[in-house]
Amino acid sequence: MIDCAVTSDWSENIDPVFPLHQGGKIEIRPTVRVRDRAGLALAYTPGVARVSSAIAADPELARDYTWKSNTVLVVTDGTAVLGLGDIGPLGALPVMEGKALLFKEFGGVDAVPICLDTKDTDEIIDTVARIAPAFGGINLEDISAPRCFEIEQRLDDLLDIPVFHDDQHGTAIVVLAALLNAARVTNRQLGDLRVVISGAGAAGVAVANILLDAGIGDIAVGDSKGIIHLSRDDLHPIKVDLAERSNRAALSGSIADAMAGADVFIGLSSGQVDDDVVATMAPGAIIFALANPDPEVHPEVARRTAAVVATGRSDFPNQINNVLAFPGVFRGALDVRATTITPGMKVAAAHAIADVVIDELEPDLIVPSVFDRRVSAQVPRAVAAAARADGVARA
Amino acid sequence: MIDCAVTSDWSENIDPVFPLHQGGKIEIRPTVRVRDRAGLALAYTPGVARVSSAIAADPELARDYTWKSNTVLVVTDGTAVLGLGDIGPLGALPVMEGKALLFKEFGGVDAVPICLDTKDTDEIIDTVARIAPAFGGINLEDISAPRCFEIEQRLDDLLDIPVFHDDQHGTAIVVLAALLNAARVTNRQLGDLRVVISGAGAAGVAVANILLDAGIGDIAVGDSKGIIHLSRDDLHPIKVDLAERSNRAALSGSIADAMAGADVFIGLSSGQVDDDVVATMAPGAIIFALANPDPEVHPEVARRTAAVVATGRSDFPNQINNVLAFPGVFRGALDVRATTITPGMKVAAAHAIADVVIDELEPDLIVPSVFDRRVSAQVPRAVAAAARADGVARA
Repeated sequence: MIDCAVTSDWSENIDPVFPLHQGGKIEIRPTVRVRDRAGLALAYTPGVARVSSAIAADPELARDYTWKSNTVLVVTDGTAVLGLGDIGPLGALPVMEGKALLFKEFGGVDAVPICLDTKDTDEIIDTVARIAPAFGGINLEDISAPRCFEIEQRLDDLLDIPVFHDDQHGTAIVVLAALLNAARVTNRQLGDLRVVISGAGAAGVAVANILLDAGIGDIAVGDSKGIIHLSRDDLHPIKVDLAERSNRAALSGSIADAMAGADVFIGLSSGQVDDDVVATMAPGAIIFALANPDPEVHPEVARRTAAVVATGRSDFPNQINNVLAFPGVFRGALDVRATTITPGMKVAAAHAIADVVIDELEPDLIVPSVFDRRVSAQVPRAVAAAARADGVARA
Repeated sequence: MIDCAVTSDWSENIDPVFPLHQGGKIEIRPTVRVRDRAGLALAYTPGVARVSSAIAADPELARDYTWKSNTVLVVTDGTAVLGLGDIGPLGALPVMEGKALLFKEFGGVDAVPICLDTKDTDEIIDTVARIAPAFGGINLEDISAPRCFEIEQRLDDLLDIPVFHDDQHGTAIVVLAALLNAARVTNRQLGDLRVVISGAGAAGVAVANILLDAGIGDIAVGDSKGIIHLSRDDLHPIKVDLAERSNRAALSGSIADAMAGADVFIGLSSGQVDDDVVATMAPGAIIFALANPDPEVHPEVARRTAAVVATGRSDFPNQINNVLAFPGVFRGALDVRATTITPGMKVAAAHAIADVVIDELEPDLIVPSVFDRRVSAQVPRAVAAAARADGVARA
């Protein structure tokens, strides 16, 4: 096992990420030791035939006697990888392996990377549906909008295992967690917040949805053409749906217009926001500037206006990192054999993440560190309980 | 890790295969340890982006910096699982996990089980082709004949990684290995052998092909209708092809007719052979009765006529077990980044397996034990050398 901490031993002339990635970052390991013919006869033929026959008679037993109980497919088509865009399935593989590593490390989940050699929506859905039955869940990853919405929805309808597009919901859960604590630390009520979301891609849409599910009513979402409202005639159906449920104040115009007097700015695009626009926000505002590597508002500028600032970067306080959510969401879902991930499970995950640091709250500590072990203890429990409450648990 | 050897501790009232299979037999494990933010920044974002960008620019680098270098997909549709037949994808999963366990244990290969929820030839090919690029090879498994022939051929044509249907070629390689040593121990030349193969499914066809590739000219293959010859009008194209290349003596009639005076009988169907038919074989015959659990000829009966007897069972001498072949074949193919598995690589694997016990040969020791570590040392080397000789190695 290569320890990242020792990479400083490598030559100064070599970028340490390359030797670290040599041969990949994950492997398949037996959990059963076969040392002799008797062992082989139990773990393989002829003994395995009795397990196979039992599962053929009652497929639900695959949850007991195979790795389906603990697995998630991490599926991408390589079209929206990090900030790199459409770099293809092989380029995406190191990221998917990293995801699998984090799934195991922080959730004890066995994640199998699948990098698809197609960008066609129907082909992606058909392919995933045909390989899905032997796995416990599907984590969609780095699939570009708007295809990601249809792919997730149709797979969730087709399959009886959870389907979760992390770029949407992982981000949304952690943003909600951070916002719950940012509201606490600034003595605001969720229902009173005026929120502006810049960006209506996968993450922007999902963040808007989870904030609505959590009881925040006044949300304006902007895309590259400005605030999304029903009078616009250039909207994808996903944005029409969003326009119907958000923008209670019926704002139109630019994102800058919406920001005047707003309590919360959530940046989920790479569009920079001018300093003087930031200054128009409400006193003691909350700014989550999540674009990577360049936040929409530099944290130092944001601090001039805002009481709480978060970014997507690990070198500033309050990093909004999906790693806080996806391992625990799937751990909880697998533990109760959930058939889907409901809005209630997502909101419950956000509350659990926020609650980890509730007794330590400060403007610069609204979310736990990704290495805080309380996260992996508490998120799965909250998600499992919500699955039961929502009637989607089978165990 | 559950050790098969301790299963005797379980209650006498419980079939030990079930507790052994609890939760499955394989897992995904990180090979890189991430202990802090600095590690995360190397193994995941932002560092991983540099590896992804490099691979996007030169996809061949995926062989260096991802688990593609060491992985095989084990793909089934669950239609021909062990002796159980068409038990579906979930029923097949414990067998595929067992296969993955053996791949790692005996070849150091990371094998990912994929159980397909379709039996349609085109859908299987499309699905596997779309998920294949991020893996180093494809092991097809327990797919029923005759679809298996077309699926293997078309995938091999489509993909630049090895495609290997183990039920065909794994069996064929070990049968050839055993026959090489059976001929040695009975002082016969391969070119002089008269061989009868009972069964013209996946294994029968592949065994006939590898024996022809190895220089055995006189082979009669029989199916449920009798000996395959060109005058029959009921033959699938695969069998027409076989008829054109085998049966040099132009035999017709039943398998019993072909067995009179034959040197070698290879049973690859479940069709029983009468004792008095066995007695018509040449003196000092070689009988491989490989049907499981009931050999075509019981070993005790076979011994009355034959000098060498092999079965597929572990409780008789000379077990013909694919485990001797598939881990080393893929280990060797992956080591040299082979683009396909050639006939020469299969024949080389057979010779390597046979050579392991060449200095210990006895009628009851014509193949090594599956636990003989010399197999996993020598087969990969022979396969890699053959891949280079055949011009299909890329490293």
